[in-house]
Amino acid sequence: MKKILAPFALLSALSFAAPLQAQSSQPERLRDAALADDTVALDIVEGLTTEVGPRLAGSEAEARARTWAVARLKALGFRNVHIEEYRMPTWLRGAETAEIVGPYPQKLAIAALGHSGATPAEGITAEVVGFDSVAELEAAPEAKVRGKIVFVSHAMKAAQDGSGYGYYGPVRRSAPRIGAQKGALAVVIRSLGTDYHRNPHTGLTSWQKVTPIPAGALPLPDAENLQRMLKRGKPVTMRLVLTPRFVGDQVSGNVVAEVPGSDPDAGIILIGGHLDSWDLGTGAIDDAAGVAITAAAARRIMDSGRPRRTIRVVWFGSEEVGGFGSDAYRAAHKDENVVFVAESDFGSDRVWRMDANLTPANKPVVDRIAALLFPLGITVGTAQAEAGADLGDWAKAGVAAIDLQQDGTRYFDLHHTPDDTFDKVDPEQLRQNVAAWTAMLAVLANAREPIGKLPPRPAE
Amino acid sequence: MKKILAPFALLSALSFAAPLQAQSSQPERLRDAALADDTVALDIVEGLTTEVGPRLAGSEAEARARTWAVARLKALGFRNVHIEEYRMPTWLRGAETAEIVGPYPQKLAIAALGHSGATPAEGITAEVVGFDSVAELEAAPEAKVRGKIVFVSHAMKAAQDGSGYGYYGPVRRSAPRIGAQKGALAVVIRSLGTDYHRNPHTGLTSWQKVTPIPAGALPLPDAENLQRMLKRGKPVTMRLVLTPRFVGDQVSGNVVAEVPGSDPDAGIILIGGHLDSWDLGTGAIDDAAGVAITAAAARRIMDSGRPRRTIRVVWFGSEEVGGFGSDAYRAAHKDENVVFVAESDFGSDRVWRMDANLTPANKPVVDRIAALLFPLGITVGTAQAEAGADLGDWAKAGVAAIDLQQDGTRYFDLHHTPDDTFDKVDPEQLRQNVAAWTAMLAVLANAREPIGKLPPRPAE
Repeated sequence: MKKILAPFALLSALSFAAPLQAQSSQPERLRDAALADDTVALDIVEGLTTEVGPRLAGSEAEARARTWAVARLKALGFRNVHIEEYRMPTWLRGAETAEIVGPYPQKLAIAALGHSGATPAEGITAEVVGFDSVAELEAAPEAKVRGKIVFVSHAMKAAQDGSGYGYYGPVRRSAPRIGAQKGALAVVIRSLGTDYHRNPHTGLTSWQKVTPIPAGALPLPDAENLQRMLKRGKPVTMRLVLTPRFVGDQVSGNVVAEVPGSDPDAGIILIGGHLDSWDLGTGAIDDAAGVAITAAAARRIMDSGRPRRTIRVVWFGSEEVGGFGSDAYRAAHKDENVVFVAESDFGSDRVWRMDANLTPANKPVVDRIAALLFPLGITVGTAQAEAGADLGDWAKAGVAAIDLQQDGTRYFDLHHTPDDTFDKVDPEQLRQNVAAWTAMLAVLANAREPIGKLPPRPAE
Repeated sequence: MKKILAPFALLSALSFAAPLQAQSSQPERLRDAALADDTVALDIVEGLTTEVGPRLAGSEAEARARTWAVARLKALGFRNVHIEEYRMPTWLRGAETAEIVGPYPQKLAIAALGHSGATPAEGITAEVVGFDSVAELEAAPEAKVRGKIVFVSHAMKAAQDGSGYGYYGPVRRSAPRIGAQKGALAVVIRSLGTDYHRNPHTGLTSWQKVTPIPAGALPLPDAENLQRMLKRGKPVTMRLVLTPRFVGDQVSGNVVAEVPGSDPDAGIILIGGHLDSWDLGTGAIDDAAGVAITAAAARRIMDSGRPRRTIRVVWFGSEEVGGFGSDAYRAAHKDENVVFVAESDFGSDRVWRMDANLTPANKPVVDRIAALLFPLGITVGTAQAEAGADLGDWAKAGVAAIDLQQDGTRYFDLHHTPDDTFDKVDPEQLRQNVAAWTAMLAVLANAREPIGKLPPRPAE
């Protein structure tokens, strides 16, 4: 998406802010070098998307990605590079087609949601009943839903903080289960996304204890076409083929690499992203970018001399399909002295805000990081750092965390779609990410003061 | 594509230019009314895309489109609404998949080009040989191509006048034939388009006397991924399934509607667009918009009182697959007194330039039209009006023509892709088109002076 480069061209200029100061510190120099010329992150994204491509959790492709990752992390000079395997229930995509049989025959684009049930190979044909929200579906009598293909819409819009994803998320996560409970034959949703391309947004749906039914996502143009048909008032009939299948427990794994620290008592800095991706695109922004940014930043610290604290980079497996990698990792390592966690899993666009969650005593550490991020155009927010899907449990348990919030304005144009490809990564914004992470790690890995632990958060 | 509305918001304001004049003429009033409130054109696009959808030439869907068109044109009050049928060789899309087998296994998105040959159902598997241009392919020895899957790239960029489409067009139109002549098993091209979505651009390829081989288009992200693989230097193997088929001669047809004129000796104004579309999208901008704009403008003239000249609107069949509709129409009507032709077939974005080709004696007519278009932001160009694929033969034969050039900056993001859908039509720009056409027709249909004929153009 070369078109959007222009507004960010100013980032290059920002690196010239440093020389205004009398003498730049080592974190400043590392930050500015990353901003100026980092190629490690872009090379990782390019390599993973070109040489591996889509890497669905539990698949042979995810295994190839681990092999690729080990080779690349070793080549970059990391220590203790290894795979930690585990097994997880695996779901594979099958055939997927949707067509309006009448009264306005035409094909619609569709993709199965993760963990969708299957239709027979020849598909199912039924009348479509439409709802504008999950609340409407919940309020509907069973008689309106039973034996039908349920369609659920929503009004998600793009936002810099991506907040629409959580707010409208139940359309994907819960509507299929609610439809199933009311006797629907299948549920199709308006993709949980913001773009008008014919590329559906997949993503996990949650059945809890309900038996899965076929569940798919229509791209926005198709969802709106279906809505226009429904508004005309005649019964609309759809033929739907979705033949994914669960293939039982398969091997998945986390890939781990370290920058060894000089002081084992100072605790471990644990960072990362996820190596698996959905299977429709090549997982460039979700989340080759995240594993690339964290590794590129950690390597810059490594190359600048041995840090006080060990930095451990984990490229998690099977994040998209339920976080089996993060669960396995936390179960195996929860008693280690991890003092800080941070995760990169929101694309490759620039960091625009830092949300920190350190002890009050560590305010000077946060202040030093904030000062380093200021010239990169990064503000300080007041939200509680969550550390994301793979490291969130550590933060909930009281480990200090920082979220380097990325600009999500176009994230949900691409998220979980075939369009998540290498060309969408803006090299300049990716370098800004590496610069921000490098600055943060430079402070945290070498801080003389202890990084304190917070009280565990109450369970939700 | 709601995002692009903002830059054109000024169009609304333009209609206020008229009251500055002492008294507005009838063409001015008709123009301004169209700009302010035309709904006819948008309703036609909405209806065709929703109720019919894709309408490939010769298919049952194109027949449904004709039935729909007749009903709509009659409902709009047109006279002499009828279908003129003909038969044409028909090609239908089949299965289509591409995957890299090694060394970097992953699926690629692909669509067959129109008139592509077929692989066996199980596909073909062969090494890929890449070329950056048709010239490179032409220069290659047969030994480099024989038994291979040929990949041809190019560097088309978006341009307001769409000139990249002609210049880079041989990659789609000729590369498959050249590959076939050199013994290639199949040819895949970088889509003749400008967007980075995973939606291939189909379109006709020309075999001349060569036996068709499988020929497909990769979206730009896939084409660039393949290029990155090839650059790594190891042999890249692709498995390709393309199973379209020719199904012999089928019925197609042109839909004709008239605004009867008062003076049969003054000649006929012949305008239109094409009703058929490629089968991947719903043909909103290509060319529901064109048939909608021309019909909406003609109807405004009709509703303002009987014009001097008959305006005949033709919604041509089978433009995309070789212009069988226009050939049939010209063969049947070439001896009629058609004095002017104009065609709308370049999307739904605003008209930005008028190119006129009338006799020197008719300069006052052109000047009156130009004055009416000036407040719509339309300049006067110096290119020779061509009238496009469906009416170009009339212009070549010497019939006066005007091209109302539409802004093609984003046209080749959408052209011949699944993304050609209703949501891409900007209602405000569509109204500007109707306003421009209404102004042009108001002058031409009522001009007191004869509309003269030009010398036939030399054959190319």
